[in-house]
Amino acid sequence: MSRVYNFSAGPAVLPESVLKQAADEMFEYRNSGMSVMEMSHRSTVYMDIIYEAEELFTKLMNIPSDYQVLFLQGGASLQFTMIPMNIMTANKKFDIIHTGLWTRKAIDDGAKLGTVNTIASSADRNFVYIPATDNLKPSKDADYLHICYNNTICGTKFTTLPDTGNIPIVADMSSCILSEEYDINRFGIIFAGAQKNIGPAGVTIVIIKKKLMKRAGKNLPAMLDFNVHAEKRSLYNTPPTYAIYIAKLVFEWLLNFGGVRAMEKQNRYKSSLLYDFIDNSKLFKGNVDREYRSLMNVTFSTGSKKMDTLFVKNAEKNALVNLAGHKSAGGLRASIYNAMPVEGVEKLIEFMKKFEMENL
Amino acid sequence: MSRVYNFSAGPAVLPESVLKQAADEMFEYRNSGMSVMEMSHRSTVYMDIIYEAEELFTKLMNIPSDYQVLFLQGGASLQFTMIPMNIMTANKKFDIIHTGLWTRKAIDDGAKLGTVNTIASSADRNFVYIPATDNLKPSKDADYLHICYNNTICGTKFTTLPDTGNIPIVADMSSCILSEEYDINRFGIIFAGAQKNIGPAGVTIVIIKKKLMKRAGKNLPAMLDFNVHAEKRSLYNTPPTYAIYIAKLVFEWLLNFGGVRAMEKQNRYKSSLLYDFIDNSKLFKGNVDREYRSLMNVTFSTGSKKMDTLFVKNAEKNALVNLAGHKSAGGLRASIYNAMPVEGVEKLIEFMKKFEMENL
Repeated sequence: MSRVYNFSAGPAVLPESVLKQAADEMFEYRNSGMSVMEMSHRSTVYMDIIYEAEELFTKLMNIPSDYQVLFLQGGASLQFTMIPMNIMTANKKFDIIHTGLWTRKAIDDGAKLGTVNTIASSADRNFVYIPATDNLKPSKDADYLHICYNNTICGTKFTTLPDTGNIPIVADMSSCILSEEYDINRFGIIFAGAQKNIGPAGVTIVIIKKKLMKRAGKNLPAMLDFNVHAEKRSLYNTPPTYAIYIAKLVFEWLLNFGGVRAMEKQNRYKSSLLYDFIDNSKLFKGNVDREYRSLMNVTFSTGSKKMDTLFVKNAEKNALVNLAGHKSAGGLRASIYNAMPVEGVEKLIEFMKKFEMENL
Repeated sequence: MSRVYNFSAGPAVLPESVLKQAADEMFEYRNSGMSVMEMSHRSTVYMDIIYEAEELFTKLMNIPSDYQVLFLQGGASLQFTMIPMNIMTANKKFDIIHTGLWTRKAIDDGAKLGTVNTIASSADRNFVYIPATDNLKPSKDADYLHICYNNTICGTKFTTLPDTGNIPIVADMSSCILSEEYDINRFGIIFAGAQKNIGPAGVTIVIIKKKLMKRAGKNLPAMLDFNVHAEKRSLYNTPPTYAIYIAKLVFEWLLNFGGVRAMEKQNRYKSSLLYDFIDNSKLFKGNVDREYRSLMNVTFSTGSKKMDTLFVKNAEKNALVNLAGHKSAGGLRASIYNAMPVEGVEKLIEFMKKFEMENL
């Protein structure tokens, strides 16, 4: 079999050039005499890799110098604990805009450590929209406001941010990081699991305003303390060395592509191709209110469970795979991350047209 | 340059056949149409990989059915927090045998959650031995006894275990797991970072007696709760999928080699070659009391810092790399994990002979 178009929500498609380079360098990296997997994380050759990854990422995201970039482990899920542990003050209270399963998990873990105040929610319509942010005010004593910028499962994304004054916004960007340009200054913390737009599962990137790190108490477990990781520049203990190396290759690929601005343009093009087709289709219907449609996760359905299942099955036969919706949402989903070429989206639409003709 | 003999303490040498297979399968795994890195962790093809990894590991270690195997993140270092969080009872107290930096870290993190009682220590002689276990008794109200079975930095290992009655032994086996046969029933928990004998950094394996998991309180953060990971068979959130795949290849390689028994035999042979040479050398001297010498990390020195540095430098020119001791211990160290072939140790000894002749 040859390579398929992989619409997985994550772990997800990676650039073919990255995979080829990784394969070429697997047995021996440059002149090191060994694989990147075999390198001491304290060796010069490896430290060059992790520091370059950090620098490339900082450049790609245009991260100001008063922010710290950390390569951590445990996925976005561990951040649901680390962030309140480190950033809650004596108030022990944070606000959240509830937009689906990922904020549900943040609420559940946060409530074990303090008070979580849901200031807005789209649960009433099964998370197919993002609550309006215009007149949204955080609680006066909130330590921060938590949002999930792009909801992988529902296919929604924020298009505006609430004015929170001095209260920092903490954003889970696992499924949208590097997909469009963000003004980092609007955020106190941005965090993301790598397995969508960054690299292999097993590394989590945290961008944190340095000032916020000072909030942490003195008695945190070392591995859960942002300050410990920051002091050692992500080398407090052995980091996920190989995953960070692949992330570095992805960052190089993205820079060569023209950076995040060029990628955002392509992402808007790719998603509009698909949404436009869906909007004009007599068989398929988009799940999400137009205003809040994700650039990365396009959710839709035929309205019939049986037909959706047939679609997934037939698509697979045409080398278009992982198109089933998340089990909690049902329906269909095409995740079209940075590494999904335009051609993949075009082939998907071509197949959808054919399927529609045959099944309407 | 061709591949070197890599004596790194970790991340460390991997079997060449594993690297070759990984390179071959990087672009496309079997008939999946994608790289293992790109696979959804919920896909059948990936679940086959992680479950097979678990089964192979269980077979290799001869793990009884009343134990749970977990693939986690955060290295051994996160276990210094997760274990007391999960396994301490209302006593909030555990015992430890202090044998170097890794128990120091376990003490420091444990003390943030409860009382840590150091019942024996080899700090008086800079950890070049393991305290005698014959008459060692744990505290009556200790929730468990923590030990570091093999100290990577000092090059020591336990050769006997104390009789702790009903008090479970928790063993950090990061640098000795799969290197020799262990009677799992003697332990309550065994944990190990992967980056020595298992695979790439970024996955941590925990073997835990199921009964002990019941001690955990109800309010633990999800990612720090052994029960959450056990219920989902290490798939609560996205695991480090690629690292686990490489671990599976290493397990297959080890089974083909003849399993842990055959590997232990080779490890005893390899380490005795090196220790015998050192014991008969006029230039090199072993660091550790003979009784407690590690099979994995052979620590030695010329007694002169300048000579040690020259040795490391010249060895490197001969494709024998990463022979400097840990910065906290100084001197020299050859880590000879499972994947280091006998030939690597022979070449090292050959070079040491030559170096001795030239520099004595």
